[in-house]
Amino acid sequence: MSDLPDITIGHWTDRDAATGCTVVLCPNGVLAAVDVRGGAPGTRETDLLRPGNVIDRVHALVLSGGSAYGLDAAGGVMRWLEERGQGRDVSPDHEAPVLVPIVPAAVIFDLSIGRADVRPDADAGYAACEAAGPGEIEVGTVGAGAGATVGKALGPERSLKGGVGSASERTDSGITVAAVVVVNAFGEVVDPDSGRVVAGPRGDEPGTFDRTLEIMRKEPLLPPFAVEANSTIGVVATDAVLTQEQALRLAIAGQAGLARTIVPAHTIVDGDTIFALATGTNDTETDILQLAALATRAVERAIVNGVEAATGLAGVPSAREWAREGQ
Amino acid sequence: MSDLPDITIGHWTDRDAATGCTVVLCPNGVLAAVDVRGGAPGTRETDLLRPGNVIDRVHALVLSGGSAYGLDAAGGVMRWLEERGQGRDVSPDHEAPVLVPIVPAAVIFDLSIGRADVRPDADAGYAACEAAGPGEIEVGTVGAGAGATVGKALGPERSLKGGVGSASERTDSGITVAAVVVVNAFGEVVDPDSGRVVAGPRGDEPGTFDRTLEIMRKEPLLPPFAVEANSTIGVVATDAVLTQEQALRLAIAGQAGLARTIVPAHTIVDGDTIFALATGTNDTETDILQLAALATRAVERAIVNGVEAATGLAGVPSAREWAREGQ
Repeated sequence: MSDLPDITIGHWTDRDAATGCTVVLCPNGVLAAVDVRGGAPGTRETDLLRPGNVIDRVHALVLSGGSAYGLDAAGGVMRWLEERGQGRDVSPDHEAPVLVPIVPAAVIFDLSIGRADVRPDADAGYAACEAAGPGEIEVGTVGAGAGATVGKALGPERSLKGGVGSASERTDSGITVAAVVVVNAFGEVVDPDSGRVVAGPRGDEPGTFDRTLEIMRKEPLLPPFAVEANSTIGVVATDAVLTQEQALRLAIAGQAGLARTIVPAHTIVDGDTIFALATGTNDTETDILQLAALATRAVERAIVNGVEAATGLAGVPSAREWAREGQ
Repeated sequence: MSDLPDITIGHWTDRDAATGCTVVLCPNGVLAAVDVRGGAPGTRETDLLRPGNVIDRVHALVLSGGSAYGLDAAGGVMRWLEERGQGRDVSPDHEAPVLVPIVPAAVIFDLSIGRADVRPDADAGYAACEAAGPGEIEVGTVGAGAGATVGKALGPERSLKGGVGSASERTDSGITVAAVVVVNAFGEVVDPDSGRVVAGPRGDEPGTFDRTLEIMRKEPLLPPFAVEANSTIGVVATDAVLTQEQALRLAIAGQAGLARTIVPAHTIVDGDTIFALATGTNDTETDILQLAALATRAVERAIVNGVEAATGLAGVPSAREWAREGQ
C-alpha cells in the first residue's frame, strides 16, 4: 500500500473466468485481528486471530474469489513465503527453522459470473505474491474483485459490477489508516455523504436504480439467493502501534464503514469480513478512538472507489457504464 | 409498542437528576437475542441469550440510565413480573411454581449530566412497569433517554441532547419491524438519506456543527473520555416467527442502522447494544433477509426520531433548540 511501505499488494486476475485473488503481503509479520459480521462467511485461519489466542501476527492476508474453493489460494501464498524464509518458526530448537507462514483468508462468491469451474487456486495465490509491489494499488475489476457484483435484490441479471477499492486517511500527526476492500454485496452501494445511490439494482429505465429496501419490503427474497452468497471483504491497515484488542476495534470500525456504504449490510447472504493490520512503525501518539473513526471513513471511501473504478465484465455492466446508458 | 400489541413499554423519569429507565414488557415470554458491538458495554443477562445456550425467551428488557448502577432496575422488573405470576418456572415438579423472570438489561452512561448520585434502581424499574401500557411510545427526553447526550468530540459542554426514539417498518405482507432506541453517543447523528448532520458537536456559531471526524483527525481524544462511556442501546421487535439465530441477525441488522446514523459508531467509549424480540404472532411468510433490511431502516429512523424529539435538560440543549439559536 503506497502509504504503508511495509505492506505490498498483488493481484492475480482471470478475466475470462471473471475471478481472481488479491494478496496483502507483510512478510515480516504484522499484528492482525479480524471481525466477521456477515451470515455467510468463507474464511480460513480466522479463529486463531481471536484476542487471547496464541497467534497475533500474520505474514499475509488473502482476499479471493471462487467461493470456498478460493481459500486454496492461501496455500500458494504460504509456499511463496516459506520459500523466502518467512513464517513463524515452530522448530523446537530454532537451529533448523521450521517455518509456518500465517495467512488468514476470506473469499467472495463469484461463481455466478464468468466461469464457475475456474477458481483461484494455490498457483493463483503464488502468482499474486509475485505480482505484489510498492506503489498505488490497482483497483476496479481486478484480483479478487474481478467477479465481484453488487445490487442483487432484483436478481444477478440486474446487478452491477463491484470491484477492488482503496482509500487512505491520515491523522494531522501523520498516522495512516488505509483500506482495501473487495466490494461484492447483495445490497446497493450508497455514498454516505449524500445518500446518493452509486450502484444498485438496475431500474427499468437506463441509468436508473430501484431501491433495495422497497424491493425487499414487497416480498421475501431469500429462496433464490439462499445458495448464492455475496460478501464484502477487506483489510484496514495502519502504521500505528496497536494491541490486538485495539486492532479488533479497528476492524469493527471498518465494518461500520461497510454498513454506512452498503445497504443492507451484514446480511444472511453476505459473509462480510474485515481484517485489521497494525505495522507499528509509527510511534506517534494516538488512540483507538481516533484511528477507528478514520478506519470507518477509509472503508466508506474504499467501497465507493471500488464500485466507481469497476469496469464491466462477463455481461455485467459497471455503474459508470450504466450511468452513461441513461444519458 | 403500538404496532406490536404483545409488547408494552413504560418509562420512569427523574428530570431533576436527568436520568431514568425504560422497560420493554413481554410478560408471556418472547424469543430474544442480543448483539453487543460497542467497546464499553454495561449489560446484564446477555450471555444467556447466546444461541446454543439454554434460554431463548425473555419476559422483559430494561434500558436504563445510571451507568452500571442502572442494571439494578432489572431487579425491580423481575419483582413486578414475579408478583404477577410471570417468569420461567424452575420448580422441580411444576406443582408449586418457582418463577424466575428473564430480564436482560443494558445501560447508558448519563452520570455527567444532572445529578450523579441519583440512579435508576429497582423501584425505578418497578415504576416503569406500572407505567407501561399500549399505544404510542413517549419519545425524546424521557425514560432511559432523560440523561442521554450526543456529539461529544468537543467535550460534554458542546454536546446536544439525545433521547428515546421509535420507528416502525412494515412489509407489504403486513409483518412489522419496530425499533425503540436510546440515543446516547460519542458520535454525531446524521440522516443517512441525505448525509445531513442532525446533531453533532456544537460549532462556534449558533446553530452550526463541527464535524466529528475532522475534530478527531487533529489529535487523539481518548484521555478525557476514557472514564466516560456513552452507549446507544435499543430493541428491534417483530411479530414474525423467527429462530433465535434469525433474531440475532435482526439485532446485527439493527447495529448496521446504528452505524449508518451515528458517526463514529461502535467506538471504544460506546457500549452499543441492540436486543431483538420476535413475538411469533404473525405467521405470514417472510425471511430474515427481508426483515433484517427493515430492521436496519427502523433503527435509522428511531435514532433520528430520538434526537429530533429530544428537549433540552440540565443545561444541554436539544438539536431543535440549537437550530433555533442559529436562526
